[in-house]
Amino acid sequence: MKRNQDASQRRARLADIAERAGVATSTVSRILIGEKTLSIRPETRERVLELARALSYRPNPRARSLQARKSFSIGLVIPEIDNPVFGAIIRGAQRVAIERGYSLLIAYADKDFPDQDLYARLVEDNQVDGLLVTTLQTAPPFDPGRWSIPYVLVNRDRGADDPKVMVDYRHGTRDAVRYLAALGHRRIAYVSGPLEHYTGRTRLEGYRAGLEEAGLEFDRALVVECDYGRAKAESAMSQLLKPEGSAPTAVCAANVAVSAGILAVLARAGLAVPRQVSVLALLDTFVADMLTPPVTAVSYPFIDLGRASASYLLDMIELGKPSAAAPPLPRHGITVRGSCGPAPA
Amino acid sequence: MKRNQDASQRRARLADIAERAGVATSTVSRILIGEKTLSIRPETRERVLELARALSYRPNPRARSLQARKSFSIGLVIPEIDNPVFGAIIRGAQRVAIERGYSLLIAYADKDFPDQDLYARLVEDNQVDGLLVTTLQTAPPFDPGRWSIPYVLVNRDRGADDPKVMVDYRHGTRDAVRYLAALGHRRIAYVSGPLEHYTGRTRLEGYRAGLEEAGLEFDRALVVECDYGRAKAESAMSQLLKPEGSAPTAVCAANVAVSAGILAVLARAGLAVPRQVSVLALLDTFVADMLTPPVTAVSYPFIDLGRASASYLLDMIELGKPSAAAPPLPRHGITVRGSCGPAPA
Repeated sequence: MKRNQDASQRRARLADIAERAGVATSTVSRILIGEKTLSIRPETRERVLELARALSYRPNPRARSLQARKSFSIGLVIPEIDNPVFGAIIRGAQRVAIERGYSLLIAYADKDFPDQDLYARLVEDNQVDGLLVTTLQTAPPFDPGRWSIPYVLVNRDRGADDPKVMVDYRHGTRDAVRYLAALGHRRIAYVSGPLEHYTGRTRLEGYRAGLEEAGLEFDRALVVECDYGRAKAESAMSQLLKPEGSAPTAVCAANVAVSAGILAVLARAGLAVPRQVSVLALLDTFVADMLTPPVTAVSYPFIDLGRASASYLLDMIELGKPSAAAPPLPRHGITVRGSCGPAPA
Repeated sequence: MKRNQDASQRRARLADIAERAGVATSTVSRILIGEKTLSIRPETRERVLELARALSYRPNPRARSLQARKSFSIGLVIPEIDNPVFGAIIRGAQRVAIERGYSLLIAYADKDFPDQDLYARLVEDNQVDGLLVTTLQTAPPFDPGRWSIPYVLVNRDRGADDPKVMVDYRHGTRDAVRYLAALGHRRIAYVSGPLEHYTGRTRLEGYRAGLEEAGLEFDRALVVECDYGRAKAESAMSQLLKPEGSAPTAVCAANVAVSAGILAVLARAGLAVPRQVSVLALLDTFVADMLTPPVTAVSYPFIDLGRASASYLLDMIELGKPSAAAPPLPRHGITVRGSCGPAPA
């Protein structure tokens, strides 16, 4: 391989950044490894980080890691492995990690089979330099008070002053109800997930807000809880069809699996979708497109959520403190497919 | 917490194993950390490992890791994040890892956005003590010749003498075709994945073997390739319906997403499933249950695949050499749902 390549073609080195920033190479190095004891003006730090990004600086991982005792990896702990939401978060987080010279390691916190050593290995054994956490309700317990590394909660809120990035389930659900109301629906039911969880509670608030903004009364009998699985969704929907005559003309489903159960019950009852009953899933995934009819759903920017969360975390790792505020996310939207139509006359 | 618990209740210690095995505690320790320079009789090593398992010995991870310079983690690199097959493999591998005192770290080799540093970090920076690999076709390149740690190929075969654990796609596909033939079908089509890949080729062999065992001729016009996605599956199925009169009475779909595309085309063509056309997916996932009708599919023991692969890898890590042979897997089966019936008269 040629050694004397043109500077614009070869990989940028610390010296290139140092020259342009007008500081010593060692200062660049100490800024880039996030050395906490380094005393330097914030503007200089910012300029060096910006140049590193502009020059696509990517350190030799081995050299960098030995020097800094950092792993140049970030961790993402997820509570479910078959939920496409986490796939999108992973994609987004990993892209940002790679752009900034880090790898993403994923750990699955299986609630039926918890790994009690997981956080100890990730955090105390320095396998990662920071953690993205989506597992407030799972074992092993989430205990950042004891942690020596930065973390960001991804779409989770425990009411504490944690760094976090969230999509807006409340307004997404409100908009779904308003969409159905605009189609003329007056009896809009809701097959909800467990209401003791944050997501369930937040969506119920959004559902009630949507009804209120549309001038519709909240009717507790139109809300039935399930466990996000198809079987419980089917019994919830069967319950909503009794007594005859009081059936809803539109149903919000907590997720796509729940909407599959609702569609099956409606098909068995001989009710046409969307001619007699509209069905809307409150959380879009690629499975919505496989159902018959394909299901209209609220789409959230989960890839952007992953990107923003990783970016927020890496700023903390490299700057040694959180950015002023969590990065903003694009707005949710409704992906219109074939399962919603005007209310029957 | 009480200190003087009965030996049968408290966590087993190195000394308990040493006493039962009749060797020094330090020998037990050196065997369990897989020290390669330890000179000891194979029977003694086996006895100690068996006792450790029988006593459910789980070392203090911190102490063990400092002592052995091991991470007590194994890595699993996957090429797709939304494919439920990998979810099952992860579940199985993680359970075995935890049972044996290890954590599982998952890395996603995103082909559209490769992490060139991934293997270097996992292997050379000692983030893991061994690797489960499912990514023969993705970047960064798989290069075990350079690796200092054990690895196992999971459901992958590159024709080399790698340690590997495989499910039997060939016989699973053959059995699916025989199942359809037993229902009286004579024109059995196949919407295949890309035939240049191992999985595509192996399944085509199984399809041909199934036809042959059922006494049916192979007809190249009944095999159409797609990319495992729904859109291409729809055009493949539309192609199989022309010219009229020669349409198949049964269709094998490479996976569940492909079967969703096939069902949509049949619904639009006014063909009833399974009365006029049977549809069978060659790879079962939980999505098969959400379709209308729910799709009959070949189920493979992917959780067992994960368990067996992790177990094989951990034996290598702890014994310093591969076991005699890859662990056997349970057989595949056909999960019968509502999409296959007798051939129309």
